[in-house]
Amino acid sequence: MANRKSRSWHLTGFGIDHLILGEAPLAEPGNRELLVRVRAVSLNHRDKLILDGSLSPALSFPYTPASDAAGEVVSTGPGVRRFRTGDRVTAHAVTDWVDGEGPPLLHEKMLSAGLPGVLGEYLVVHEDAAVPAPKSLTDVEAATLPIAALTAWSALFETARVMPGETVLVQGTGGVALFALQFAAAAGLRPILTSSSDEKLARGRELGAWQVINYRTTPDWDEAALGMTGGGGVDYVLELAGGENLPKSVNALAVGGRLSLIGILAGVESPLPTVAITRKRIVLQGIAMGHRKAFERMNRAIEATSLRPVVDAIYPFEKAPGAFERLAKGPFGKVVISLA
Amino acid sequence: MANRKSRSWHLTGFGIDHLILGEAPLAEPGNRELLVRVRAVSLNHRDKLILDGSLSPALSFPYTPASDAAGEVVSTGPGVRRFRTGDRVTAHAVTDWVDGEGPPLLHEKMLSAGLPGVLGEYLVVHEDAAVPAPKSLTDVEAATLPIAALTAWSALFETARVMPGETVLVQGTGGVALFALQFAAAAGLRPILTSSSDEKLARGRELGAWQVINYRTTPDWDEAALGMTGGGGVDYVLELAGGENLPKSVNALAVGGRLSLIGILAGVESPLPTVAITRKRIVLQGIAMGHRKAFERMNRAIEATSLRPVVDAIYPFEKAPGAFERLAKGPFGKVVISLA
Amino acid sequence: MANRKSRSWHLTGFGIDHLILGEAPLAEPGNRELLVRVRAVSLNHRDKLILDGSLSPALSFPYTPASDAAGEVVSTGPGVRRFRTGDRVTAHAVTDWVDGEGPPLLHEKMLSAGLPGVLGEYLVVHEDAAVPAPKSLTDVEAATLPIAALTAWSALFETARVMPGETVLVQGTGGVALFALQFAAAAGLRPILTSSSDEKLARGRELGAWQVINYRTTPDWDEAALGMTGGGGVDYVLELAGGENLPKSVNALAVGGRLSLIGILAGVESPLPTVAITRKRIVLQGIAMGHRKAFERMNRAIEATSLRPVVDAIYPFEKAPGAFERLAKGPFGKVVISLA
Amino acid sequence: MANRKSRSWHLTGFGIDHLILGEAPLAEPGNRELLVRVRAVSLNHRDKLILDGSLSPALSFPYTPASDAAGEVVSTGPGVRRFRTGDRVTAHAVTDWVDGEGPPLLHEKMLSAGLPGVLGEYLVVHEDAAVPAPKSLTDVEAATLPIAALTAWSALFETARVMPGETVLVQGTGGVALFALQFAAAAGLRPILTSSSDEKLARGRELGAWQVINYRTTPDWDEAALGMTGGGGVDYVLELAGGENLPKSVNALAVGGRLSLIGILAGVESPLPTVAITRKRIVLQGIAMGHRKAFERMNRAIEATSLRPVVDAIYPFEKAPGAFERLAKGPFGKVVISLA
Repeated sequence: MANRKSRSWHLTGFGIDHLILGEAPLAEPGNRELLVRVRAVSLNHRDKLILDGSLSPALSFPYTPASDAAGEVVSTGPGVRRFRTGDRVTAHAVTDWVDGEGPPLLHEKMLSAGLPGVLGEYLVVHEDAAVPAPKSLTDVEAATLPIAALTAWSALFETARVMPGETVLVQGTGGVALFALQFAAAAGLRPILTSSSDEKLARGRELGAWQVINYRTTPDWDEAALGMTGGGGVDYVLELAGGENLPKSVNALAVGGRLSLIGILAGVESPLPTVAITRKRIVLQGIAMGHRKAFERMNRAIEATSLRPVVDAIYPFEKAPGAFERLAKGPFGKVVISLA
Repeated sequence: MANRKSRSWHLTGFGIDHLILGEAPLAEPGNRELLVRVRAVSLNHRDKLILDGSLSPALSFPYTPASDAAGEVVSTGPGVRRFRTGDRVTAHAVTDWVDGEGPPLLHEKMLSAGLPGVLGEYLVVHEDAAVPAPKSLTDVEAATLPIAALTAWSALFETARVMPGETVLVQGTGGVALFALQFAAAAGLRPILTSSSDEKLARGRELGAWQVINYRTTPDWDEAALGMTGGGGVDYVLELAGGENLPKSVNALAVGGRLSLIGILAGVESPLPTVAITRKRIVLQGIAMGHRKAFERMNRAIEATSLRPVVDAIYPFEKAPGAFERLAKGPFGKVVISLA
Repeated sequence: MANRKSRSWHLTGFGIDHLILGEAPLAEPGNRELLVRVRAVSLNHRDKLILDGSLSPALSFPYTPASDAAGEVVSTGPGVRRFRTGDRVTAHAVTDWVDGEGPPLLHEKMLSAGLPGVLGEYLVVHEDAAVPAPKSLTDVEAATLPIAALTAWSALFETARVMPGETVLVQGTGGVALFALQFAAAAGLRPILTSSSDEKLARGRELGAWQVINYRTTPDWDEAALGMTGGGGVDYVLELAGGENLPKSVNALAVGGRLSLIGILAGVESPLPTVAITRKRIVLQGIAMGHRKAFERMNRAIEATSLRPVVDAIYPFEKAPGAFERLAKGPFGKVVISLA
Repeated sequence: MANRKSRSWHLTGFGIDHLILGEAPLAEPGNRELLVRVRAVSLNHRDKLILDGSLSPALSFPYTPASDAAGEVVSTGPGVRRFRTGDRVTAHAVTDWVDGEGPPLLHEKMLSAGLPGVLGEYLVVHEDAAVPAPKSLTDVEAATLPIAALTAWSALFETARVMPGETVLVQGTGGVALFALQFAAAAGLRPILTSSSDEKLARGRELGAWQVINYRTTPDWDEAALGMTGGGGVDYVLELAGGENLPKSVNALAVGGRLSLIGILAGVESPLPTVAITRKRIVLQGIAMGHRKAFERMNRAIEATSLRPVVDAIYPFEKAPGAFERLAKGPFGKVVISLA
């Protein structure tokens, strides 16, 4: 394998015009590392923010984007015990977070942050940063999981510990939101979905939404949510918008309700309605992805419930820039780049 | 209502021959009490043990059996705030356990223990010991919930806090077991069902069992369960048999696995394999019904998942003794007495 | 007792000048109620806000202030089982919150909110709203517990579940803060205390503060707290100021840190630094007093650790207005009115 | 360092006569490994069982015993980030358990199990298997922590989550028991200590026992414990004896009580009183050491509470066999071998 090359996309500057397809010698897997033939890469909103320079203004170039990949182990370095050649794997973006408490984000051991991204033909990862891909999913589907699905799973099941019958308000139809909607429906919860698009809400109903609210036509969506729960309030909110949206989320919550605040989308600051927080004894928790153990538990749940990720569009590797353009337009579901 | 009478069944001694239909003046509901026109009563294994004298040898007669009833509020005493005339309710057998930590069982505030049973045309209960019947269930179905369903729910969701994708081993096809099977399936878990009857296992599959084991033809059912989980072990066991069964349950568990030990069926003593318990850091928890708040959460989940209790047979009120005889024969699902 | 009278203080309008000592016939304890001879009443910041009209502008007069009382049971109504004549008790201000999830505050079943206050010679309470006073405390000390101590206890031990060795940042030297400081020290934690007064900080050290910060002379107290923890951040913050203070509290927290937001002092709205909340996966929880079960657990801990509440000043019943004036001046410890 | 030698004790067969002092070339620390100059080694009951052949009959010789060591980092391999030369460290016996769920015991990555033991002048450990020694402890004291203290800490604070004021029954005066007693006292709990020796109980009182019971002179020690808690029962039992002791422990527990079953001392099987377990909803949890994160939290608590481990006797390295003999005689506190 020593003479083989690996092609990968990298940024030489901010903006889609600086996304270049290049080639480099294939690295050898080191101690306890895997060499993975990448089969699919999915994009996240975060990748768009990096591309346009708004998330990491001090990025050093060249930079390989994207953190979510699925593929096949083609060789293993010394000491590898968890995988064998031929295994289908998904990379875990926070490579050093195996279980328990995690590091603060964004940190040096995250793919496409301190570590290079995954948008190439081959990927070298430590075996502790890989999980078996769900048998029930295609490579394209498996590639959608590392950030969006794991964030939703960690919020719902690892921290908020939702239970069947609870009402869960999910905001919007981004990647995290759709996974949260599907997980909630599969676990016997009652998801309420909000969006500014009736068409997206209709598709959300097909994915299991119990109730839907168009927040454009119903600006007092919090009151609408209260009404849907007989005035009692929702048990849990997945807060994905932040800013002025947060006080409404708190208003929609039941006494003892919980709210997960999701990373990058939530803006820099929100007003916190402290009286309502204390009066109703609300628990608000910041969420930033999850650990590998949670990833494995999630994959098991995906297999058990036959959940299929929503894929908006698939682009061939050579047309990766098109995937970034699609991402910017507000897709319904994940945008994936295929290297099959 | 002062002159009306209420018929009820009562034991004048142990054994089915001493189950007598009698009549008494209708009581008035006192402070914060409800008068309920009973529409359906379901039986539990416990009722059989009381009837034949094996559970409470010192029972004082006459004794009205059964603890699980659903019906309609026909009048309310002073101070009632939670219900109105016409409401459909289910009685909560542990009448003074509203939330939080509970009293030890069997205790003086339990229906058909310290308090009279419910097998009559009318029932007076404190409003704090009633919950709204699920709208999605008939009276017959709602009457199956108070002990069997609430015990299963409390074990799975209030204490063990199972999550989607986990494997759950449910022992047998009694009342608690079938509810546990249905709840587990509705919540995205993977239930493994054991029974000595292939026919019952086939019906269990229809209710959502992921795998089934006939423990008669596969006495090493624990090893079979280990095999089904790739050698890793099941995440959770609902232990319903006790005795020599417990060490096998522990053997079937994964590292970090949990086991709920359910009340009355589990015998007086089991051997505890302490090495396996400590080596795998097993959590074993005794379960004895649940609180009213859990009952309400369960009903919400039943509505959200459209779960329908399995009813084995329905007997008219006048033929209640037939229901006890059916109960003794190992029904598949709940045996209910209807007063519709 | 039918002809006896009970004196009590009541407001006929807002302001200390409208606090009047009156007299009324002594009530009889009803079903499951206790008649308590009040021995001591303590004041909270909340009482000041009510007195001056800033908390409850629509208050109806006459209004008996104060919610925290200790005394002796002098007679019991029918059905009382938990107490006997002669028992020393403390009233639980949220009278209907026994265990588990609680009602939202301020609600109709709270003393000196929906129910009358306690600043009189006698008090009638339901037996479910009383707890035995700690044997290790005087009546004056026991009267300090219901709001300030229970809020601190619930925040630290019932919700945040702090453990020995953790660093706990406590803001200010109000009633809740001093109890939190004492509890934290008694439980093997490392309390960091903030105040604008070096003198109060010195007294805080005597009560067990591990480190102290004068936030007037050290406006970047959050950075100071980070420094005290070797840059890692504090494990837990008891947020008592709110407003612009909250972002600093979040900055002072460790990855995975927790913050309890305490009721009435925290202002109406705070800016929430969402990036830091998500990056460090902070848990923020609203706290509003606690349940009776927690009160009982707290009293047990007070006895076990020989903790003595800090009493700033004691006023005789006839000079109750002086206690309110003292309260307005920022006491160090609780202001108590004695009826001994 | 290449030519230096390291002396260490090893077994060439079972029994104290086969404990031999040998010498071998000093190993170099590999990738992310530390070379530690051992300053002190403490023994556990487990080491005695291994020595006499009762725990691991199939042990392969030569075998270096002991798992608990403290010392100083003298050199570091490539990639080490957590430590520097000169740091005082304690080894973590379960070398690959960093946080979250752990592996089953006894496993291949445990010191003196799958990995060599620590009873030598030098030790090579992965940096992830070391924790900074508490600054407040001597090397001899720090060496007592890895198994006994961490097991007690994990049982009390990481799993049972005890809180101040709770009653904790600690059985005996072995290594785990004494740490549990000291931790409980330092955290504001009420420890009840049992022993067959009045002299040891007297020393237990000095270490903070609230009550003591001589189970030889009071065979119904469970009833005695119930009496000490006013009949309510203890909140938590640290079960260290197992066998016929377990039913008594369960009898001594309060409704909702918890019991931690500790590893190796608990025998192979205990009778489990299932009726009491379910009636009182007891939680029984198997404990086998803890993770490194817990070790770090424990050390922080040791520093915060100025807790000093109880050291029974210190033997010089050359007289290590004497330490094993002392261990067999039932010391009060830890037996330590010093290499200072």
